[in-house]
Amino acid sequence: MTDYPYPLLERPSMIWTKQTDKTTDLKVHEWIETVGDPFPNWHDYDVTILGVPLSKSSISTSAASDNPDAMRQAWKSFGTYNLDEDIDLATLKAIDLGNVKQHATDIAYTHQQIEQAMAAMRTHHPHTLPVVMGGDHSITAMLIKGWKQAHPEETVGILQLDTHFDLRDLNVFGPANGTPIRNLIESGTVEGKHVHNIGLHGFFNAKELKDYADETGVHYTTMKQARKKGVAHIIKQALEQLHNQVDTIYLTVDMDVLDIAHNPAAPAATPGGMYTEELFEAVQIAGEHPSVKAMDMVCLDPRKDIGGMAVKSAVHTMLSFLTGYCRH
Amino acid sequence: MTDYPYPLLERPSMIWTKQTDKTTDLKVHEWIETVGDPFPNWHDYDVTILGVPLSKSSISTSAASDNPDAMRQAWKSFGTYNLDEDIDLATLKAIDLGNVKQHATDIAYTHQQIEQAMAAMRTHHPHTLPVVMGGDHSITAMLIKGWKQAHPEETVGILQLDTHFDLRDLNVFGPANGTPIRNLIESGTVEGKHVHNIGLHGFFNAKELKDYADETGVHYTTMKQARKKGVAHIIKQALEQLHNQVDTIYLTVDMDVLDIAHNPAAPAATPGGMYTEELFEAVQIAGEHPSVKAMDMVCLDPRKDIGGMAVKSAVHTMLSFLTGYCRH
Amino acid sequence: MTDYPYPLLERPSMIWTKQTDKTTDLKVHEWIETVGDPFPNWHDYDVTILGVPLSKSSISTSAASDNPDAMRQAWKSFGTYNLDEDIDLATLKAIDLGNVKQHATDIAYTHQQIEQAMAAMRTHHPHTLPVVMGGDHSITAMLIKGWKQAHPEETVGILQLDTHFDLRDLNVFGPANGTPIRNLIESGTVEGKHVHNIGLHGFFNAKELKDYADETGVHYTTMKQARKKGVAHIIKQALEQLHNQVDTIYLTVDMDVLDIAHNPAAPAATPGGMYTEELFEAVQIAGEHPSVKAMDMVCLDPRKDIGGMAVKSAVHTMLSFLTGYCRH
Amino acid sequence: MTDYPYPLLERPSMIWTKQTDKTTDLKVHEWIETVGDPFPNWHDYDVTILGVPLSKSSISTSAASDNPDAMRQAWKSFGTYNLDEDIDLATLKAIDLGNVKQHATDIAYTHQQIEQAMAAMRTHHPHTLPVVMGGDHSITAMLIKGWKQAHPEETVGILQLDTHFDLRDLNVFGPANGTPIRNLIESGTVEGKHVHNIGLHGFFNAKELKDYADETGVHYTTMKQARKKGVAHIIKQALEQLHNQVDTIYLTVDMDVLDIAHNPAAPAATPGGMYTEELFEAVQIAGEHPSVKAMDMVCLDPRKDIGGMAVKSAVHTMLSFLTGYCRH
Amino acid sequence: MTDYPYPLLERPSMIWTKQTDKTTDLKVHEWIETVGDPFPNWHDYDVTILGVPLSKSSISTSAASDNPDAMRQAWKSFGTYNLDEDIDLATLKAIDLGNVKQHATDIAYTHQQIEQAMAAMRTHHPHTLPVVMGGDHSITAMLIKGWKQAHPEETVGILQLDTHFDLRDLNVFGPANGTPIRNLIESGTVEGKHVHNIGLHGFFNAKELKDYADETGVHYTTMKQARKKGVAHIIKQALEQLHNQVDTIYLTVDMDVLDIAHNPAAPAATPGGMYTEELFEAVQIAGEHPSVKAMDMVCLDPRKDIGGMAVKSAVHTMLSFLTGYCRH
Amino acid sequence: MTDYPYPLLERPSMIWTKQTDKTTDLKVHEWIETVGDPFPNWHDYDVTILGVPLSKSSISTSAASDNPDAMRQAWKSFGTYNLDEDIDLATLKAIDLGNVKQHATDIAYTHQQIEQAMAAMRTHHPHTLPVVMGGDHSITAMLIKGWKQAHPEETVGILQLDTHFDLRDLNVFGPANGTPIRNLIESGTVEGKHVHNIGLHGFFNAKELKDYADETGVHYTTMKQARKKGVAHIIKQALEQLHNQVDTIYLTVDMDVLDIAHNPAAPAATPGGMYTEELFEAVQIAGEHPSVKAMDMVCLDPRKDIGGMAVKSAVHTMLSFLTGYCRH
Repeated sequence: MTDYPYPLLERPSMIWTKQTDKTTDLKVHEWIETVGDPFPNWHDYDVTILGVPLSKSSISTSAASDNPDAMRQAWKSFGTYNLDEDIDLATLKAIDLGNVKQHATDIAYTHQQIEQAMAAMRTHHPHTLPVVMGGDHSITAMLIKGWKQAHPEETVGILQLDTHFDLRDLNVFGPANGTPIRNLIESGTVEGKHVHNIGLHGFFNAKELKDYADETGVHYTTMKQARKKGVAHIIKQALEQLHNQVDTIYLTVDMDVLDIAHNPAAPAATPGGMYTEELFEAVQIAGEHPSVKAMDMVCLDPRKDIGGMAVKSAVHTMLSFLTGYCRH
Repeated sequence: MTDYPYPLLERPSMIWTKQTDKTTDLKVHEWIETVGDPFPNWHDYDVTILGVPLSKSSISTSAASDNPDAMRQAWKSFGTYNLDEDIDLATLKAIDLGNVKQHATDIAYTHQQIEQAMAAMRTHHPHTLPVVMGGDHSITAMLIKGWKQAHPEETVGILQLDTHFDLRDLNVFGPANGTPIRNLIESGTVEGKHVHNIGLHGFFNAKELKDYADETGVHYTTMKQARKKGVAHIIKQALEQLHNQVDTIYLTVDMDVLDIAHNPAAPAATPGGMYTEELFEAVQIAGEHPSVKAMDMVCLDPRKDIGGMAVKSAVHTMLSFLTGYCRH
Repeated sequence: MTDYPYPLLERPSMIWTKQTDKTTDLKVHEWIETVGDPFPNWHDYDVTILGVPLSKSSISTSAASDNPDAMRQAWKSFGTYNLDEDIDLATLKAIDLGNVKQHATDIAYTHQQIEQAMAAMRTHHPHTLPVVMGGDHSITAMLIKGWKQAHPEETVGILQLDTHFDLRDLNVFGPANGTPIRNLIESGTVEGKHVHNIGLHGFFNAKELKDYADETGVHYTTMKQARKKGVAHIIKQALEQLHNQVDTIYLTVDMDVLDIAHNPAAPAATPGGMYTEELFEAVQIAGEHPSVKAMDMVCLDPRKDIGGMAVKSAVHTMLSFLTGYCRH
Repeated sequence: MTDYPYPLLERPSMIWTKQTDKTTDLKVHEWIETVGDPFPNWHDYDVTILGVPLSKSSISTSAASDNPDAMRQAWKSFGTYNLDEDIDLATLKAIDLGNVKQHATDIAYTHQQIEQAMAAMRTHHPHTLPVVMGGDHSITAMLIKGWKQAHPEETVGILQLDTHFDLRDLNVFGPANGTPIRNLIESGTVEGKHVHNIGLHGFFNAKELKDYADETGVHYTTMKQARKKGVAHIIKQALEQLHNQVDTIYLTVDMDVLDIAHNPAAPAATPGGMYTEELFEAVQIAGEHPSVKAMDMVCLDPRKDIGGMAVKSAVHTMLSFLTGYCRH
Repeated sequence: MTDYPYPLLERPSMIWTKQTDKTTDLKVHEWIETVGDPFPNWHDYDVTILGVPLSKSSISTSAASDNPDAMRQAWKSFGTYNLDEDIDLATLKAIDLGNVKQHATDIAYTHQQIEQAMAAMRTHHPHTLPVVMGGDHSITAMLIKGWKQAHPEETVGILQLDTHFDLRDLNVFGPANGTPIRNLIESGTVEGKHVHNIGLHGFFNAKELKDYADETGVHYTTMKQARKKGVAHIIKQALEQLHNQVDTIYLTVDMDVLDIAHNPAAPAATPGGMYTEELFEAVQIAGEHPSVKAMDMVCLDPRKDIGGMAVKSAVHTMLSFLTGYCRH
Repeated sequence: MTDYPYPLLERPSMIWTKQTDKTTDLKVHEWIETVGDPFPNWHDYDVTILGVPLSKSSISTSAASDNPDAMRQAWKSFGTYNLDEDIDLATLKAIDLGNVKQHATDIAYTHQQIEQAMAAMRTHHPHTLPVVMGGDHSITAMLIKGWKQAHPEETVGILQLDTHFDLRDLNVFGPANGTPIRNLIESGTVEGKHVHNIGLHGFFNAKELKDYADETGVHYTTMKQARKKGVAHIIKQALEQLHNQVDTIYLTVDMDVLDIAHNPAAPAATPGGMYTEELFEAVQIAGEHPSVKAMDMVCLDPRKDIGGMAVKSAVHTMLSFLTGYCRH
């Protein structure tokens, strides 16, 4: 265990400097530690944050690869104290493990590294909560496979916030950002009925994918339906159903679930999508749930961001999730 | 009839190439046909789409002239299947007729061409549904005059979604983007009481125009009022009233009705405006109504768009309207 | 009184030209007068508008100094008639006094000028309503101190719409944009219990500041709470409480209270914030209240604006407030 | 003469305020006067500046209509003193006449107004130097026709800096931005051999137009040729030839002659074009020449500008020309 | 040969519509044909244009994948007639073959397709001139390998215009955009001494790469040296040397050779780089040379373009090269 | 000396992480060390880099305060090896000292800190070369005063590359970005005749300032003159003159000396300015000169940058200067 997780990971390219003696007005970048010397004692940590800067696997060209570093740079604008809930995230001990190493031209190899990174995390410090900053949605398939490799006995369910099914044909695209859920179903990693997808949008999902979802039992709620019933209500319902069927719920947030006016940086975000206030409440509820044991945020391309609003929303999504987790 | 509508129209400057054997995951650009050889058999078509790239008639300089081609380019991002309603637009047969030819320096001549194009459409294939991509709002006056030319016996009413009355003085501006409704009333084409304008905003309509609306019986609901009662409710009410009074309801959507955060590309869009989710529901309801027989979308300047969100919203507006129409 | 307020002020760098004989379709820039010759007879005026182009006092670099002129340029897009309420602002007589003169390198001196400008306004024409276009939030401390200098006997309360407490430590920052409320409390100008802050956001306010607010009795409602109960309801409640305790309510609107999708130009605006429709209703309610006797708008950096939406929102905020004031 | 030129003109929408007692560090906006009361005594003035905000006549949609006001706003960044030549423009007396009034939908009418405005200027104060801020290139035909109307006996030649011939077919386009020189030749206003066009670029001029130029004797030098021989040298040569043949040389600068890296705001600017340093020297040489008696700058669309660089270049072009004129 | 090149290629997603009867003012998009029915008779064509939309192989994320379609869209702004040289490109017959098909997640497979596409072109119509629109620089290795596959007996030399050596270590990066020249040398496809690289820049090439270049005999001239001696001179010298040593000279233009002010869209472009006028002259000289038999343009990311200037420069580069080729 | 320079400085907010074992392809961010533990042994270092993030002292609002961190982030794109000169900067040992601490609202206090920081550097490790990343030009006065405090016996001369004289009136502006040279002259720190300013531009310097320059003996060469004689030649001449008169030459580069097309991020940059290739050569020549012992770069506002070109140019300027210094 001594050299874990160095073989697979590398430090983020820039790190925040800190004033170590600071006791008040703690900012997120001053709270989250980075891996350094001496080697971390994993038992001290509650949350492990991992960057996966891979977006070569996107069907349309994406710079979601820039997102982990963009989120890290935006940490500085956020405090650890959540006035809304009177909760201070600093009661959790969190560490930024850095990024999974990327190969310039071999996507399959990088995918293996991602899977191994999650497997190693689950093997060496299974009590910590993994929070993953993608990268595109292809990584979710690898991360959950890594989880299953470490916990082969566990049943895993997925709470997915997404504009799309992500059930496209693996034979055509390979392990791309349009196929992760199908990848997990076809590889037997997750059962279709243990997937709840919320926020789907008309005109962005082929009829064939709906048919596949119906055949494999994937649960789904369109954004229009979710808004009518209340996003919070739908999330709670999905969590309850999953809780009764699986050991672990994995939360995956495709940032394109947001309305394009709120998230211009997700190339596939649409008008009529979810608002940030709805998303933050949704992930906070998920974070509170005892079965939710990992989360990722994917498909945010910071190069398309406007005034930093999308990256801010991604950081806020992470912090809202952790706010919920503080209630455990 | 053999060469209709070529004398007035020209093909869009770029057309999407298609994989003709595609049977699944049909995209909008693969669904909508373009006029080519052999000559279309109009009886096969349900929907005829027309571009009107005129914005020289805008009071403030506008590049809404770029909108028809911008919308065509954005078709590729949309599928024909609407998951929200489980409706596939591909059950309709649609054809893109191209653009009304424009004169570089003679606006009046171009206006005549627009009127003739609609008249010809209504004469030669009156069973199809015209969907018009503007251009600025001056074109609505020409399009409805063309309709009346082909159907002189019909009473036409207007359901208008707009931030403005568009009742400014013809003597001052001529047939500009601020005058179409007044143009139609003063020319006796449409009666004031057969106009329902929804989404008007404070500070963007002179008192004189309100007085003119009151005198001529134009019905109007401000955005603030509409939001309090529910946009969908207001739309249904207006449709019902019009249905009892006119033969044909023409839907005109000035894209500046949207909140400026949702539509930065309409120069006159305002804060506090309509959200895209509200607009999409409104036009879908209109599309469902049997008396609504034509629609246009105007005043969207793609050069001011941010991340393509406004053009996406325009395409979604068209598709939501057609979703309603599928229910006929 | 003859030369007031020239020693402290200077004319805006550009002024709108007017067609003096215009009687219809009056635009805001044609309604608001500018100081010229002959010298204004203050008794004729209801509203005095003041620009304070200071943002050197911002903790993070800001060009909120550009805001007064940006707002003036945007006046042209607005009419004086508010269709929503059937109220014409032109029934009020308004004058733009220009800007408080700025020193290039001496912030303290400029702050004194700001304080003196408000004191002079209150001394020479106390019946007019001051509307101030900032600048950053540091100016609010100076403006209220100037008010108190002219009206030492009055108790002043603050209705603050803000993402932040603005209660940071004066010893560390001096009179910066993060400290005005604390400045007012510590200087004995305003009592903590007479401050109502609405729209605060989690992760952007340190725990220490909440503790300070609790200790000094500052009232606060987070955006999340306000949205659940209704922003309008919360505003009315705060006004009612203040009305019972103070002589004068000063309304200060930090434009960063808006959601970042609606206001990309406030560097500290966040996702999940207030929507413009909510803000406009809030300030209109405040404007209607007889105890609200001054207002400012601060912390909007036009260089970060997207398509002019934020500056438009600031002007709309001012006009909505004045709409309420017309009901007095 | 009393009410000239009011019937045709209107004041710019914004004007700079001035500190009238300023004697040092004079800025351009403080130097150029605006028409007000009392009525100007034309004999006092050397330079009359006219805005022509027309770009509806552009073949491709353009907002060159915004240019006159954009240039006026940029005046503030420039001083009157030219350190390069130790010349102070303030030794000239200059007045901004405002803009030729525009009709919203009748281009032909506006064109007549432009022609009349120049004719009136030449009739009422023929000793002043007209400097025109366009607008698109169609206005040059109207301005020179107006000149000829006032001075029917004069032979007029044209020194044109342009990427294009502007010799396209009037029958197809009407008086558009691609046809002004042909318009002048075909109407007999100017002879082809009295036109010298410098800065033309390959791939942007049809062979037919070169043939027309050759047939009508238009002189032309491509940018590539001009750079090899030196732009200044070519300009001097052209001026010398024109000087021997005509009474008056009219300088027209199509801002698209600039390299697109130096002028992103001219939609037709190309890579490989003229650099600003070359243009400034060229127009200064032209300004020095006694036969050059008027100039215009056209086809700059400020909405496409980047960081204000193009508008700054246009103002610098005007000031460089006037620097030359000071040497008269 | 009947179905060549369909198995490897696909049509561009959009194609320009044409007015087939047009005989004057031919635009580039009207001149270049597209593959359709009936099947092209290759003997009719002089130039075959190929798109290679691959940039997943870039070390830093790039959207150079968008470049082929961006260039096609920009064709419309260019005429076929080059006034500078009085040459009409339309004397050449050119066809756009479309794009090499891309796999979403298997870069190695796509690379094979690219190699095969060039091999097939050289086998089936070896008399045509291939012009390739990349994509990133990794494709150059594949294209030249494809060439060698079809012409194993030929010696191939490379004239490279580039800021970088592109000699990075294959073992670390694989066939990425930083390694193509090394790839060709190490695979024995091209000898180091047959590579002439012009335009290299300080601070962007490691000492190790210079050492490798020296060891393998690669010729190189920095931009600073080239400018001092004249870019045209250096190009002619390199062509002459290569002409004496190889059968075929392949021209590869990495668009990052341009100064960043002239090409903001090449992520690795630097200040102090080549100007467009220099590049256009350089490629025209290369096009004139009888040994230059193919060319590609790579590493232009249209998403970073400013006002279209970079894509325009790429098209101009292609047309300047073909202008030279017309002189054959 | 033990705690120097901590009392005045703070670490940059982000620092680059490094792979310490790297021996090839060294990037600038991997070469420049940061202050950490153990405490630096100053005798090991050749170059000390200091950030001065102050721009509150700018007359027009500027975010040049963001420049030091922006430059640090851009270091990653540059290698230490300069191929143009075959010089590796890594032969110098360089350390980034961090930033001078800033007060939020007290500019005078911050100015004192800057002066003290330079004085301390010169006292504690006078053999190192200070390279300062501003900030606005006001800091140059403080830095040179700090130098004189440490070396009261030395005569200091200034080589200034600037569009402006920076000789404006201290009584009006205080120690702002328009007054540093006058500040130095009036305080007796530097004699006017020991200032050589190169790159001045017409229309951006008042006649009064030229007169002041003439009276105080300041040497100046406009950009137009410099380009005619060659920038390199003028620089060498100035250095030679200064070398004969002073002990130390301080190089100050106001980045607005660059042409606005090359540097959109300097608000006062103009068209017709210096090109980057000229600037890089100029500073390299200065760096080579034995009397040049310190340099700063000022007035670059990264928020106005386009595609990072200006910040890249600033870093290249620093590296070109150090390339020259390597020749010492």
